Amino acid sequence: MSRLIEYKDMSSRAKAVVEGIAKARGIDPANINNVWKALARHPAVMEQFAAEMKTAFAPGKLDPLTKEMIYLAVSITNQCEYCIASHGAMAKAKGMTEEMHEEFMAVVLAAQKGNKITMAYRVPVDKAFEES
Amino acid sequence: MSRLIEYKDMSSRAKAVVEGIAKARGIDPANINNVWKALARHPAVMEQFAAEMKTAFAPGKLDPLTKEMIYLAVSITNQCEYCIASHGAMAKAKGMTEEMHEEFMAVVLAAQKGNKITMAYRVPVDKAFEES
Amino acid sequence: MSRLIEYKDMSSRAKAVVEGIAKARGIDPANINNVWKALARHPAVMEQFAAEMKTAFAPGKLDPLTKEMIYLAVSITNQCEYCIASHGAMAKAKGMTEEMHEEFMAVVLAAQKGNKITMAYRVPVDKAFEES
Amino acid sequence: MSRLIEYKDMSSRAKAVVEGIAKARGIDPANINNVWKALARHPAVMEQFAAEMKTAFAPGKLDPLTKEMIYLAVSITNQCEYCIASHGAMAKAKGMTEEMHEEFMAVVLAAQKGNKITMAYRVPVDKAFEES
Amino acid sequence: MSRLIEYKDMSSRAKAVVEGIAKARGIDPANINNVWKALARHPAVMEQFAAEMKTAFAPGKLDPLTKEMIYLAVSITNQCEYCIASHGAMAKAKGMTEEMHEEFMAVVLAAQKGNKITMAYRVPVDKAFEES
Amino acid sequence: MSRLIEYKDMSSRAKAVVEGIAKARGIDPANINNVWKALARHPAVMEQFAAEMKTAFAPGKLDPLTKEMIYLAVSITNQCEYCIASHGAMAKAKGMTEEMHEEFMAVVLAAQKGNKITMAYRVPVDKAFEES
Repeated sequence: MSRLIEYKDMSSRAKAVVEGIAKARGIDPANINNVWKALARHPAVMEQFAAEMKTAFAPGKLDPLTKEMIYLAVSITNQCEYCIASHGAMAKAKGMTEEMHEEFMAVVLAAQKGNKITMAYRVPVDKAFEES
Repeated sequence: MSRLIEYKDMSSRAKAVVEGIAKARGIDPANINNVWKALARHPAVMEQFAAEMKTAFAPGKLDPLTKEMIYLAVSITNQCEYCIASHGAMAKAKGMTEEMHEEFMAVVLAAQKGNKITMAYRVPVDKAFEES
Repeated sequence: MSRLIEYKDMSSRAKAVVEGIAKARGIDPANINNVWKALARHPAVMEQFAAEMKTAFAPGKLDPLTKEMIYLAVSITNQCEYCIASHGAMAKAKGMTEEMHEEFMAVVLAAQKGNKITMAYRVPVDKAFEES
Repeated sequence: MSRLIEYKDMSSRAKAVVEGIAKARGIDPANINNVWKALARHPAVMEQFAAEMKTAFAPGKLDPLTKEMIYLAVSITNQCEYCIASHGAMAKAKGMTEEMHEEFMAVVLAAQKGNKITMAYRVPVDKAFEES
Repeated sequence: MSRLIEYKDMSSRAKAVVEGIAKARGIDPANINNVWKALARHPAVMEQFAAEMKTAFAPGKLDPLTKEMIYLAVSITNQCEYCIASHGAMAKAKGMTEEMHEEFMAVVLAAQKGNKITMAYRVPVDKAFEES
Repeated sequence: MSRLIEYKDMSSRAKAVVEGIAKARGIDPANINNVWKALARHPAVMEQFAAEMKTAFAPGKLDPLTKEMIYLAVSITNQCEYCIASHGAMAKAKGMTEEMHEEFMAVVLAAQKGNKITMAYRVPVDKAFEES
């Protein structure tokens, strides 16, 4: 498996990133998710991804659950098991009910098919969409 | 380019599908999108995709704009130009402002990176996510 | 667009590859497909791909049309427009009727969906499949 | 791992889907594959996928083994482990010999390379393929 | 086509990003590449991507050409035409000869095949690689 | 798991391939990597991939570490766990330090984002890149 670095063994740069995330989530830094334990090897990459995630999930016009579902839709399409497991859990924690999950899956699967259909039949973009 | 079949030249099965979509959208069947003009070659595939899209976008727990953004997130990840153009236009028509679009892109791009990070570092799924 | 090298302007190594393909297909080397005009820049890559294609499509247990459909299924999944156009045309030339094309598309699209479903729901492989 | 629902614990809608598949395959519903045990959470998605698979694999112009190989080619391209394991086993059950498997792999791998070559060299589609 | 915003019409935030890039490259801001004209719609996304690119291509242990080839390898794998065209040109500008390009392609194509082979045959990771 | 064939149980064609690789690497054929134990089922595919890998990694204008990083960049993009583990280990063995690894990851991740950005915003290729 991947080399995971526990919080207590991280460099000070990596610790600072983990502390920022832990504080925002109200958790103990020792319980940080594995992705951060892996990224601790590369503090510069870690800092940039943490900043990017913070910006992406900052309060704004889209509500937190919608953002989680967008993230999850990307992760299913890219077939990333870790991201499906983690952001699936987060979507539930942010209010995705089983009924909403099923609707979500229906859209995600229709999109996969729609994407391949337009490629397979080499469908040209409609003028109306070009102008919008 | 792909062989597109205009509404007037479609088989009766294909015409029926187009009429159903046109009625639901309040448009003239002759102005149906290119994807349906392409699919008219294969009525069985066309009928199934039309039924699937209708179900996916039927009123439910998720609002229409959220569904469009989920569809668009999949299409960007799959790099489908037609789908990005068409569902991008539909998302705008359903209320996606420029500000929401920017937030949407921030989440989509963070997810792309998160997906590749967890693969590149071979991050094992956290126990907490397995149990949820 | 890509830099295409016409047959008359190719290096002798590239010409030899084109002549082999043209002879096998009973066409004039000047009418070789664009992919070979592009690959002529890199004769070693070109020779290896030509050898690989020759082996893949050599007479064997699978008939020529089945092989074309397998190639086309991969190309649709990878969303390669050139390959969809060229191998779609070749599949027709080798006997794929409109009815077979529609059946082919139904299988290809069901597979896309099945692939994403098993990832999204994180379905473990059945014991029965492990043992086969 | 994913939450799998055993047949005896499924909703009546999910049970009906499983019974249909089990009857068609001549197996005990309790021995249904994991993908259906996972999909039982979302009966509407399950029903649609079951119907789609039934249509895709219904008797037609393409023989059952050809269809399995097309499905398998998509699954390898999408890198779906569950689908490679399950449809690989089914292809063997439907008559794919080791020799046919090797020929199949040669075509699948040649296609992967051909797809990337045409993108990397930005090869424009030949006029002859546009007209077909 | 995409909505491109010329430098003179950009917001001050977007102009600042373009000016930074133009200065570093020694070009006129009006001649900035299309990707920045497109991103000017979304200044926050633009700023983050510009910062990320600057960090990625900052002088370090890997030489500039190696970095361009890594970027190009990703772009070919993702089948991104714009990125193949732009980073292909930049790789040449930074010293990639035709001979190096051919070697590069040979590695990229071998990797595509190796990736699919290990998935198709479901090859388990060797113990020796787990420990490294 | 996949059916692996140990060296002692391989056909003579497969043994010859393994012996060639083992000799070049100065290892015992019995310790060959799993990918070759899996490919031994299909000697023709195995021979072609071995020849392709040998050509791709033959001494040339690009140094061995650069080639490993190009291979690794493709493998991360394709999300191939086996290839990430094996070629990650090989890159380290050929001199990739932790610092170089971090720089490498920064470029790979910037490329993933750049690829999706140009698709999402449908950025047309600049004239300057067409002409190069």
